[in-house]
Amino acid sequence: MSDRERVPGLLRVLSGERIDPPPVWIMRQAGRYLPEYRELRTRSKSFLDFCYSPALATEAVMQPLRRFPLDAAILFSDILVVPDALGRKVWFVEGEGPRLNPLIEEETWRFDDVQRGLQRLAPVYEAVERIKSAIPNDIALIGFCGGPWTVATYMLQGQGGEKERARRAVYERPADVDALLETLVEMSAQHLAAQVKAGADCLQIFESWSEGLSPAQFQRVIIGPTKKLVKRLRELGVTVPIIGFPRGSGAQLGAYAHETGVTALGIDTQTPAAAAIAAAPKGMPLQGNLDPLALVVGGEALERAARDVIEAFKDVPHIFNLGHGITPDATPENMARLIQVVKGGV
Amino acid sequence: MSDRERVPGLLRVLSGERIDPPPVWIMRQAGRYLPEYRELRTRSKSFLDFCYSPALATEAVMQPLRRFPLDAAILFSDILVVPDALGRKVWFVEGEGPRLNPLIEEETWRFDDVQRGLQRLAPVYEAVERIKSAIPNDIALIGFCGGPWTVATYMLQGQGGEKERARRAVYERPADVDALLETLVEMSAQHLAAQVKAGADCLQIFESWSEGLSPAQFQRVIIGPTKKLVKRLRELGVTVPIIGFPRGSGAQLGAYAHETGVTALGIDTQTPAAAAIAAAPKGMPLQGNLDPLALVVGGEALERAARDVIEAFKDVPHIFNLGHGITPDATPENMARLIQVVKGGV
Repeated sequence: MSDRERVPGLLRVLSGERIDPPPVWIMRQAGRYLPEYRELRTRSKSFLDFCYSPALATEAVMQPLRRFPLDAAILFSDILVVPDALGRKVWFVEGEGPRLNPLIEEETWRFDDVQRGLQRLAPVYEAVERIKSAIPNDIALIGFCGGPWTVATYMLQGQGGEKERARRAVYERPADVDALLETLVEMSAQHLAAQVKAGADCLQIFESWSEGLSPAQFQRVIIGPTKKLVKRLRELGVTVPIIGFPRGSGAQLGAYAHETGVTALGIDTQTPAAAAIAAAPKGMPLQGNLDPLALVVGGEALERAARDVIEAFKDVPHIFNLGHGITPDATPENMARLIQVVKGGV
Repeated sequence: MSDRERVPGLLRVLSGERIDPPPVWIMRQAGRYLPEYRELRTRSKSFLDFCYSPALATEAVMQPLRRFPLDAAILFSDILVVPDALGRKVWFVEGEGPRLNPLIEEETWRFDDVQRGLQRLAPVYEAVERIKSAIPNDIALIGFCGGPWTVATYMLQGQGGEKERARRAVYERPADVDALLETLVEMSAQHLAAQVKAGADCLQIFESWSEGLSPAQFQRVIIGPTKKLVKRLRELGVTVPIIGFPRGSGAQLGAYAHETGVTALGIDTQTPAAAAIAAAPKGMPLQGNLDPLALVVGGEALERAARDVIEAFKDVPHIFNLGHGITPDATPENMARLIQVVKGGV
């Protein structure tokens, strides 16, 4: 086997190469659609404790790799470990989602020191090391964090859902929000750098809530902070590729792709491949964007939708993925069929 | 006064003319941010009964016109009168929103005849007549309906919120969904034509839920049905301008603008003016897109945001509006200030 062949396909595409068939991984590939994950999850009462257990996190990552010939593993963790590291308590309400004490109800916003936060996240980096040892060399390991704005919305509002209270803070407490985003940029950069040091081959920034911002806000809370995050990572000596995934960015996708410095672009379900290709700098690797519902529905619809995605991205460096995370009501059988279709099986 | 001057500014812009300052109206300008509306609303127990009362609907339309020098009035009604007319019961749960019996739980989908539906909507056309008589000649009267897909999502799921169950029906019952959309196209076309006959000067199609669809779905449930709706209206002899407002359409805005046949385009909060101008056919009138939150926040932020919108659209035929409806927590004072700024007051 030549050196070239040993480089995981995902990393070759991230370096700008076109590969047929495209490498494939699936957002939330370790997750609730797998019965073995649901069983594993019962071994820890709290979801954050689960994330902070290197053994459990490693096992969660390995589960989909045993079932499907995927080209990448992604660290099992949560974007809210960053506020947790900054001393903002995070808890999960069963069936509802994460909760924090909302910053917008507090007069003064205080955060723990970033270095202290990094120490709190030591179990995450131990998990990265274990996963790296456990996976074959031709599978790339992806580290990740939430985009600064996406994480900030949870911290500001104390929960997900409508983002209007977080958006309102951008108007009413602009200096505080800017300072919050600065803190998140620094904590996220250190967090990603530590993941790379522990063995991550590339990184993804999940900006899950890029939608609904006014153009001025998008510039202020998405593009500015992401650009700083990428710059800070490079200052810290991180050289690996960075996939930016600004879900719901719509007509702002091109600005994000051109201005933030990310290496590659995650494309959401809604954005046509042709629009993404036109919006991104020429040759930028693109990742996506099968409708996650196709993995729920299965059958002919799944196969047709998957082939449409492959065809639409056939002229650019492409990583096959969904346009959003796989949902709990998807089935492992549909997932297996999808990977077959992508890999060129009948 | 010349004939030219008697034509409402809104209609001149919709015919492709650029006017400075731009005409202005505000989506949901008759609504809960006005104390007199909240008082009026108590006079009818059910929201649909309120809509079906020509006297109450007319009074609701007149309220903002008494306070602000707006350039247009819009019929007070609801997009869900269309399913109601088709024999699908609609009710409103206080603080939660509209409810219907979900089609996705029914084996066979049956609807009342369109002509019978039109008879049920007679009070709406009576309201249009009354409003037309009540408003000055230089104020344009806008009729409206929901986009076929937006109305279909409520009918399919029985409520708003996440649209995943409605999207799933597009995969699982495509023929049924297509037939539903056909019915909605015909009912909506007849409904809009009746509004024009009663006195509406122009029309708006509120496709409030254009977001999150895969590209193939967008073509099937948004572009196709809207194109048919516009074509059907023209067949029915309706010649007035039609504003299409595909909120959240993102990178699909251009396809919508080019393919559906609408006269003008409503732009949502998120889409930068430059992107909208580039996406639309040259010279197409554009409407929008101030962040509704600016009317909640007020002050400097409101004035700056309003001036940014005016500046961004200054080279195209422009109707000033929000990027989404005004919210109940906006204030009449902020609204007054906004109209002053748009009209060129200090």
